Amino acid sequence: MISFSRYLPILSWGRHYDRSALSNDMVAAVIVTIMLIPQSLAYALLAGLPPEAGIYASIAPIMLYAIFGTSRALAVGPVAVVSLLTASAIGQVAEAGTAGYAIAALTLAGVSGVFLLLLGVFRLGFLANFLSHPVIAGFITASGILIATSQLKHILGVSAHGHTLPEMLGSLLAHLDQINWITVVIGTSATGFLFWVRGNLKPLLKGLGAGPLLTDLVAKSGPVAAVVATTLAVWAFGLDQAGVSVVGSVPQSLPPLTLPGLSPDLISALLVPAILISVIGFVESISVAQTLAAKKRQRVDPDQELIGLGAANLGAAFTGGFPVTGGFSRSIVNFDAGAETPAAGIYTAIGLAIASFALTPLVFYLPQATLAATIIVAVLSLVDFSILKKTWGYARADFTAVVSTILLTLGMGVEVGVASGVAISILLHLYKTSRPHVAEVGLVPGTQHFRNVKRHAVETSPHVLSLRVDESLYFVNARFLETLVQSRVTTGCDIKDVVLMFSAVNEVDFSALESLEAINLRLIDMGVGLHLSEVKGPVMDRLQRTHFIDELNGDVFLSQFDAWTHLMSAKPTAR
Amino acid sequence: MISFSRYLPILSWGRHYDRSALSNDMVAAVIVTIMLIPQSLAYALLAGLPPEAGIYASIAPIMLYAIFGTSRALAVGPVAVVSLLTASAIGQVAEAGTAGYAIAALTLAGVSGVFLLLLGVFRLGFLANFLSHPVIAGFITASGILIATSQLKHILGVSAHGHTLPEMLGSLLAHLDQINWITVVIGTSATGFLFWVRGNLKPLLKGLGAGPLLTDLVAKSGPVAAVVATTLAVWAFGLDQAGVSVVGSVPQSLPPLTLPGLSPDLISALLVPAILISVIGFVESISVAQTLAAKKRQRVDPDQELIGLGAANLGAAFTGGFPVTGGFSRSIVNFDAGAETPAAGIYTAIGLAIASFALTPLVFYLPQATLAATIIVAVLSLVDFSILKKTWGYARADFTAVVSTILLTLGMGVEVGVASGVAISILLHLYKTSRPHVAEVGLVPGTQHFRNVKRHAVETSPHVLSLRVDESLYFVNARFLETLVQSRVTTGCDIKDVVLMFSAVNEVDFSALESLEAINLRLIDMGVGLHLSEVKGPVMDRLQRTHFIDELNGDVFLSQFDAWTHLMSAKPTAR
Repeated sequence: MISFSRYLPILSWGRHYDRSALSNDMVAAVIVTIMLIPQSLAYALLAGLPPEAGIYASIAPIMLYAIFGTSRALAVGPVAVVSLLTASAIGQVAEAGTAGYAIAALTLAGVSGVFLLLLGVFRLGFLANFLSHPVIAGFITASGILIATSQLKHILGVSAHGHTLPEMLGSLLAHLDQINWITVVIGTSATGFLFWVRGNLKPLLKGLGAGPLLTDLVAKSGPVAAVVATTLAVWAFGLDQAGVSVVGSVPQSLPPLTLPGLSPDLISALLVPAILISVIGFVESISVAQTLAAKKRQRVDPDQELIGLGAANLGAAFTGGFPVTGGFSRSIVNFDAGAETPAAGIYTAIGLAIASFALTPLVFYLPQATLAATIIVAVLSLVDFSILKKTWGYARADFTAVVSTILLTLGMGVEVGVASGVAISILLHLYKTSRPHVAEVGLVPGTQHFRNVKRHAVETSPHVLSLRVDESLYFVNARFLETLVQSRVTTGCDIKDVVLMFSAVNEVDFSALESLEAINLRLIDMGVGLHLSEVKGPVMDRLQRTHFIDELNGDVFLSQFDAWTHLMSAKPTAR
Repeated sequence: MISFSRYLPILSWGRHYDRSALSNDMVAAVIVTIMLIPQSLAYALLAGLPPEAGIYASIAPIMLYAIFGTSRALAVGPVAVVSLLTASAIGQVAEAGTAGYAIAALTLAGVSGVFLLLLGVFRLGFLANFLSHPVIAGFITASGILIATSQLKHILGVSAHGHTLPEMLGSLLAHLDQINWITVVIGTSATGFLFWVRGNLKPLLKGLGAGPLLTDLVAKSGPVAAVVATTLAVWAFGLDQAGVSVVGSVPQSLPPLTLPGLSPDLISALLVPAILISVIGFVESISVAQTLAAKKRQRVDPDQELIGLGAANLGAAFTGGFPVTGGFSRSIVNFDAGAETPAAGIYTAIGLAIASFALTPLVFYLPQATLAATIIVAVLSLVDFSILKKTWGYARADFTAVVSTILLTLGMGVEVGVASGVAISILLHLYKTSRPHVAEVGLVPGTQHFRNVKRHAVETSPHVLSLRVDESLYFVNARFLETLVQSRVTTGCDIKDVVLMFSAVNEVDFSALESLEAINLRLIDMGVGLHLSEVKGPVMDRLQRTHFIDELNGDVFLSQFDAWTHLMSAKPTAR
């Protein structure tokens, strides 16, 4: 039973489900459902898929997450960044609009689902930590720009393509002659209206004395209002005959049972994008889930979240969807609307299922420009260049990671961008640790403390060189220490003893052990003693398994002060 | 002038060159030349090139290194591992024995030379540190096995191919029907003889009272004896007519002027192998150079060594050679024979030039099996599995790196093997730092020291949780600390203050800063104070540039003892 409820969190909250939770969840579900209809259509468009795929991708996944996920408020479905990654990944293996394209989307969701499940079962969620905050921030900002740019073609009514900013802009410019001015009017007024709702309507309503709940509800229904108004306009004036692209006929159906493409070629072509989508989706989802859980003192289990998201993606793969994850905006709406348990998600799924059956004829005249407007307004809120200023002021390495991620994402596409971001941050970290800070330390008079001779007035001796190594010693910096000690000792002719202070050395790997042995041998040749101080327990345990301590041309002292007093007093006549 | 002699070390030693150095260098050159003739032919064979390429690759490179290199005793030329890498790299772009193959070898040497020069000019020699000692040891051992296996076909007189152990063995088995028994007799007796010389002759001569120099000289001339004996045997009995493969006619010529292939396709295909060859060659060379320099208290400048090796490889590219580096065995022989300056290398080059002109007709009847025997005996001394035992006893991560490098090199080839070895050791390091050791510490009674509560009898308080973080905080472990602090605080209900002891925190990157801010906010929500102690100067400098210190729900203390006394005494009634 214990392992059952580990893997099936529904068993724990389901047992205490009561009438009050039911009604709160129902209310939240209605609000989220209304919000999700245009959003799902829009993200399907962004992914290059038929609009119904967006609805389907919100039904089974949301239900499966409700069973396997640990967050009470997370709403799973298509999200902007993952939809963009999907378009980029599938665009490399199939032509948009073909059957192969839709099947590749299913496969991508399936591979991503399996990968997430495996990560969860093997408790490898920590791998997501390789995406540093600056890389994520840079990537999200650049993706927002890419997504907004990719939607301009719908606002202008032209056909264009591309997966990088130069490609997109070039393609837009090349097709400017196709521009459809009625579409432009619809697209820009929808965009303007939505920006106005987001920026000005709330303060206006508040000024008119409306309550916060009403204010919020009106603001959130902006996209629905835009959808209704523009759809009616197209229908009333027959604008689709005048070249305005509309959603068109959408099958009136519950999510179909589908089978992802299983050819090894397809799977191997989609493997790397699927891994990227999984990791990025997981990072977005877990951030939202943890933020919302913290507000109610609830816990989210990252490894079980992987299982929940894996199940959701497998669900998408078998019901006509595409890759999904826990979305930021939809989860916030769900949380704010009062969702208490994952059951709210199940009710949302039911609502969307009804919509997919009953409402799809109504979206026939919905202009694609309106959907593009909702996407543009949503993603531009993701664009935030303040990370540039913050990291510039804090650390150049982080700044470099942000800038490279942004530029590479815009210039080379999302996959190259995020992969390079990860690689660059790892390399910068390794570079920093390859040249560790090594301080020569001396005794702060009247204390037992040793501090950097360059920052403090301290006591030193020409015969004793005390070096505090501010880094774990491992292969990347092993040779650095070798060279450093050698050059310090050869330039200071009176040095009789070297003390390496190990208070900040958290590890000594095999390469560093060999370097320490080399340092020891060279110092023996020079007639100089080598001592260690403040070696941590785990490091000492390991060194004691080798001959190094026996062969050390000196002693290991518990504290730097012990080393100093011993070396200054023990053999004074020998000096 | 200063910058001149930085880039041209010959200007500094050349100025003091005297008669005694001259005679010592000449003696060393004669010994090295005799040793290099069979070795050069053999390594050309290993690289899949005509035998004269091995001689050519020893002439111009050795001279250029004498001008630009900083080691006094390093002997540059073809070496076993680099020759194997060359064969593997070129085998992917051309068929062995064709003109394209020889041209690709020139290009490989040229690209490698340019890369080494660039590394040297931009002082990027530290990049070689990414190859950890265990990875190098595993790679060399696996390469030794691969090289020895690749030579079995010459011993058996069959044609076989392959770049991995399974490929080679499979190909050998498939061609066993071609076996030539006379070749087998020559090959096995040469191999047996060389092993006997290496293992038993020295003790025997010593037992007979021979001096160490004579002993050494006789032992070193073993390969020459084998070459002479088997060549005479083939010539006398006409064994080449009986199917024994011989070296055949070698052009009697000084090194020709050659032009490497410059097509962008060829260069880009060889770029990655050239980088690998450069880095591995540099690591081998610098290790030998530093070992020999330390014996005579001389200095080797790694960045200038890169320039020396780069020049040597460019020399090889334009004189009919292939990639070269500082070799272990030839340098030891040079050093032991008394070489005092790089001039010994110049004399060796002259000796080889004479040999390439005068001696090449004599090697017509030299059996390839003899050359294979010299390679096998030389490389099997590189095979050393003791690294497995050493790393197993020391650290599992290092052991894993060795085992993976050996298995991947044998099973997937040298390039995959060494690249995976580097990747695996980096990932293992990141994995270790992703779950840092965090010790709860308490006061050692009667001192100002704080130690791990699990290892020492220390004073603690139920209200103050002191955690010593034994790792720099950066993106890979930022979330780990967040989770850890949260779970510690929620399980200890009486905790009023958390102190993070930063004595081993050498860096806090932007991601970790955001995690610290998140920890601070959550602790504020819980009404728990957050304090830092023993923050290093560089870390504090950086934190002070942010709002974190202002918003900290507590104080920063200079020492953990200050924090403890303050928290235990300042507000005792509040507890």
